[in-house]
Formats: sequence, C-alpha cells, structure tokens
Amino acid sequence: MKLTEFIAASPEACHRPGPGDRIVMSSRVRLARNLTGSPFPTWAKKKERVKALETIRPAVESLDALKDSFSANLDDLSSLDKQLLVERHLISREHAAKSAGSGVVFNREESVCFMINEEDHLRMQVLLPGLQVEEAWKQVDKLDTALEKKLDYAFSDEFGYLTACPTNLGTAIRVSAMLHLPGLVLSEQINKIVNSVNKLGLAVRGLYGEGTEALGNVFQVSNQMTLGESETDIVARLGKVLGQIIEHEENARLTLLEGKANTVYNHIGRAYGILTNAHIIASKEAMNLLSLLRLGVDFQMFSSLDRAVIDELFLFTQPAHLQTQHEGKLGAEERDVLRATMLRDRLKSVKRPHLPKLG
Amino acid sequence: MKLTEFIAASPEACHRPGPGDRIVMSSRVRLARNLTGSPFPTWAKKKERVKALETIRPAVESLDALKDSFSANLDDLSSLDKQLLVERHLISREHAAKSAGSGVVFNREESVCFMINEEDHLRMQVLLPGLQVEEAWKQVDKLDTALEKKLDYAFSDEFGYLTACPTNLGTAIRVSAMLHLPGLVLSEQINKIVNSVNKLGLAVRGLYGEGTEALGNVFQVSNQMTLGESETDIVARLGKVLGQIIEHEENARLTLLEGKANTVYNHIGRAYGILTNAHIIASKEAMNLLSLLRLGVDFQMFSSLDRAVIDELFLFTQPAHLQTQHEGKLGAEERDVLRATMLRDRLKSVKRPHLPKLG
Repeated sequence: MKLTEFIAASPEACHRPGPGDRIVMSSRVRLARNLTGSPFPTWAKKKERVKALETIRPAVESLDALKDSFSANLDDLSSLDKQLLVERHLISREHAAKSAGSGVVFNREESVCFMINEEDHLRMQVLLPGLQVEEAWKQVDKLDTALEKKLDYAFSDEFGYLTACPTNLGTAIRVSAMLHLPGLVLSEQINKIVNSVNKLGLAVRGLYGEGTEALGNVFQVSNQMTLGESETDIVARLGKVLGQIIEHEENARLTLLEGKANTVYNHIGRAYGILTNAHIIASKEAMNLLSLLRLGVDFQMFSSLDRAVIDELFLFTQPAHLQTQHEGKLGAEERDVLRATMLRDRLKSVKRPHLPKLG
Repeated sequence: MKLTEFIAASPEACHRPGPGDRIVMSSRVRLARNLTGSPFPTWAKKKERVKALETIRPAVESLDALKDSFSANLDDLSSLDKQLLVERHLISREHAAKSAGSGVVFNREESVCFMINEEDHLRMQVLLPGLQVEEAWKQVDKLDTALEKKLDYAFSDEFGYLTACPTNLGTAIRVSAMLHLPGLVLSEQINKIVNSVNKLGLAVRGLYGEGTEALGNVFQVSNQMTLGESETDIVARLGKVLGQIIEHEENARLTLLEGKANTVYNHIGRAYGILTNAHIIASKEAMNLLSLLRLGVDFQMFSSLDRAVIDELFLFTQPAHLQTQHEGKLGAEERDVLRATMLRDRLKSVKRPHLPKLG
C-alpha cells in the first residue's frame, strides 16, 4: 500500500484530541534497543544493516498492536514520503536521510512507531495526543516486553541497555512532550523557564527535536539522563516538571490578559489579518501565526474557530503535506502561494477576533 | 484664533483633489528672500530677528491672497501646534525648532505659506494638490512681485537673490513634487531611478525633505541648482523629469500586474489584513501600509474605498494630528493604540481586496 493511501488523507482524520491539549500538544516515550552481536547501524556495513533489518522488521510486524500497520524499507519510499513521516513526527530527520537497511513500521493511529537502523537498531515510540506521558510509557513498555521475547537485545547487567550513543545508555528511554507556550514567549519569560528546566537535567528543544527551531511557539521538553534512575522515576519526574511549566504558561497568559490585553489583541488580530489575506506565505511564518490563532482560541476570541482546524492547518501547511495535495511537483514559491490559498480558504468563514478572555 | 480652530479639523475638509494625484500627491514652489542690510537669521541677534519679523509679517498679511489667513509668532505656538504644521508641510522641521523672532503666515486652503526667519528671512511657498508645478510657480511669482513692492530684498546684479546658504543663491527657487511610487519600490527599480534623477541635477528625498526617510513610498523630487537658469527653465525641466518618473511608475505597475500579480495581491492583502486588525500600530508602519492600500485603490482592488480616505488617514494617523483628536496628552504607546483604533474604525466597511487590474 502507498504511504499516502495509508496515512490519514483528510485533515480532519488526523486530529486526535487528548487531555490538556490546550497546552500539551502531544506526549511521547521512545525506547532505544540494539541486537546483541551485531554492530551499531552507524558502523555496520550495508550487509549487516540489511541483516538487522530483516531480523527486526518481521518481529515488529508480528506484534498485536501492529495488526493494521504500514511497514516499509526506507529505500522503497520517495523523499516526499519520508518528509511526510518527519512532519508527522513518525521518523527523525536523520532517519529520513538514511536508506539501505533502514525501515519504518507504524500503526494506523500513528500512536506506535518503530524506526529500524536509525542511530540504534531499533527505536520504538508511543506518541499520544495531550498530556499522557504515563500512558505512553505503559504502552511502550508493553511493546518492549513483547518484543524482547522475539529479539535478542544487547543488555549489560552493569550498564543496562547498550546504545550507539552513550547518552542513551541504561534505560535508553526518552520521555518528551510538545508544549504550546505562546504565553511564555509573548511575556518574554521563555528563556528563564528554559534555563530552569535545563538546570533540572531536562532538555528543551524545537519542533523537530535536537538543534531545531521552536517554530510556532512549540517546545519539546525531554529527559537528558537515562542512567541511574528507573523508567518510572524518569516518567514521573518529567510529568512533574511538565505540570510546573503548564502552570507558568497559564500564569503568563493570565498576566498578559490583565496587564497587556491590547498587546495580546494586537498580536492575535494581526495574525488573523495576515492569515486571511496573504497570497504568499512561507511555512515558518504560517506556523508562527497559527500559534497565535491557537492562543486566540484559548482566549475565546473566535466564535467560529476550533483548535482542531488550527492543528490540522499546522500540519497540512508544512511542505510535504502541502505537496501531497497537488498533482505536479511544486517549487518553493508555488508552495507559498498554495499554502496562502489553503489558509485563506479554510479560515474564510472565521470572523474577526473579539476581546480576549480566559475561560 | 487657535491654530486647531483655523486649520481644517475634519479629515474630509483637508483632502483636495488635483490633476494626476494618483501618483503626484502635491506640487510645491518655494522662494527664499532676505532683507537688505539685515543679518541672515542664523547669525542675527534676537533683537535683529524680531525686527525682521516685525517688518515682514505685516507686509505678508497685507497681501490679497492672505485675507483669510492664520498668522503667528512661533513663540506663541505650542510644540503640538508646530508639529501639526510640519505634518501638513506648512513649516519645516528646522523652523518648528525655532522660536523667538520666527513666524508663520498661511491661507485657509493651506496653498500659500510664508515662513519668517527660517534659514532665510522669508521663505514663501505655494503648495497645490496633484501635478501643478507651473501653476504653483505662477502663483508664487505673483506673490513675490506683490511683496517686492513692500519689502527691500537683498539682491545682487551679479548673483541674483542673496540667500543664507549659497546653494540657494540666484533664483532662490526650489520646485518640488511629492510622488507616490510604490510600483518602483515593489519592483526594486527605485534606486536606479533615484540615481538617474540625481545625475540630472535633481534631488530625491523623503516625506519631510532633506535627510528624511521615504515613508509610505512617498518621494520628494526637487531641483538642486538655483543659479544659471531662469525660474521658468527650472520649472519646465522639473516638469519634464516628473513626466518621465510618472511613466516609469506606470510601467512598473503594469509589469508587476503582468508578471507578479500574486506578489502585488500578497502585499496589498497583508496591508489590508494588518490595518483592519492591528490594535497597536506605529506611525511609520501605518504610512507604509496605507501606501499599499493606495496602490490597491489604483489597481481597483477595493470596491468601497476611496483614495481620499487613505490620504486623510495618511495625515490624521501622524502623531500630532492624532493628539489633536484626543483630550489628554498621549504617550507613544497610547498613540499607537489610538491610531490602530482609528484605522480599524475608518476601514471596517472595506471588503477584502479582489484581484488587481489596471484601469
């Protein structure tokens, strides 16, 4: 089956609501595993990579959770397909750049995904909408247990799970959440918060992970350390910090409303004005403006706009998603025109924002 | 009479249509004159400045063209009053900074204005809407002839009229026009045109003359040389160059429409979107966006928007004009909020722009 046929084709189909998704867009737990007696993918020869893939892929496909799944060697996917998967957070940018011996398997809900021969032989993730780090951990733990019966993991009694990069050694777990923090950005408190979170041994990154920009005021918060703490401790600690960041974001929004309602109104009004009237718009600008519209929805400034519409547009205005909606290959400028047309069209029935208030 | 009572208080009252005002916003001819046997204002002692003012002001007031006029010593005007006069191009920024011994006299239409003790003892201007440099010259020449019978001008048979700055020596005439050139700016041809015009011995400046920015894509074109050519030659030469610039601007617009309609639509759509939705807007941004709206009117993109409305807003969103519409003294931030409110209010019935076309 073709990738575009498998993944939700209509914007509506890919919006899944979740608890607390006003601020927490998604939660993710990812485990790294490697096969014993086989070199890590980066150092492996092509033949060894292919062999590892041929061992892992059938094992993954046989899992109950993946009965209705998409499975492919990256070699067989076009670069557009791979870019689509990156935009959906199903594979990493680094994985998209790989081909021979690399693979991907994920279920229809896109909540369970396996990258084969990325940095490690196997990276499995559970990605859930809203604030659900504990649930994501439970699900991925179950998958891991099932898979451990089928595969021979590289494990040391001293160090725990062995990984290609020593920063993942031990539990090899990465717990993260995508947070929408326009209040902290607008009130210029974001740097302070990022610094505090860093001091707690957690990392704050952009929309596509390490080294990427915080487009659309979306920040990824994740654990840094994988050694010396149990998985449940790591999950609980991240959950606690997330709770604090959410509180800061809520406070920042309240303070903005009380002291700078005009500034809020101005930012959101302008975002609305540009999104509904631009005829050329780049991906980054669109994301940043959609973020403000999302904040406007949270402030009840739009009577006829749903957060779901914004989240769909956030995804469907990105380059690869935009390309899938068009027959011929689009150049960057044509994409910017098509993106603007799509935004004007989807938002045309939305009335001008009214005064902000907090629900 | 108070200044604000004299000058047109309603936005509508100060819009005067003129020939070719689609591109040429106004035409101006200014003559510099000095009294014989009296030091130039910059070097004069206060007593000498006051004496010159007392000689010139009654002579000016007695002119037929100034029967219904406003006349004042700058000492008696508030800084807000003076700023208002600058925004209306009735006095220069330099003149507004002067006080003792300086004066201003102008008629109700604001077409005839005299600055007393600016750089020279007397600077008289005729300012007409649209492309009317020859008519402006005729009118100012008549005023000058009438005034010459009442005042003893400093004149040398060898050099002509003597002026404080040698660059004005001779005819002491400055002929200029304010041009709205968004087409040349958007198509990035403006620098080429400015260079060509400079090579012809003419100066291109910003909205408030020498050393000021070209806000709102408005450029002032004027003669540089005042010596060695007759006034009528200077007027004719400027008129000819203006005709060429107008032609270039028209061509640039046509080329934009033919080759870059999306870019035009994008710029004008965004300007409309921001002006109708911002809640805080600075003067410069407002001018630049209003300029694009003005181009949109020329391109027939707005079914219910008149160029006159834009020209009023162009003037009435400027700081001093904005202040006159409000009781208490406004801070910069309050002005930005009031400006945005005024713009949203005046433009609220204007529908979204449609595809551009040339009339």
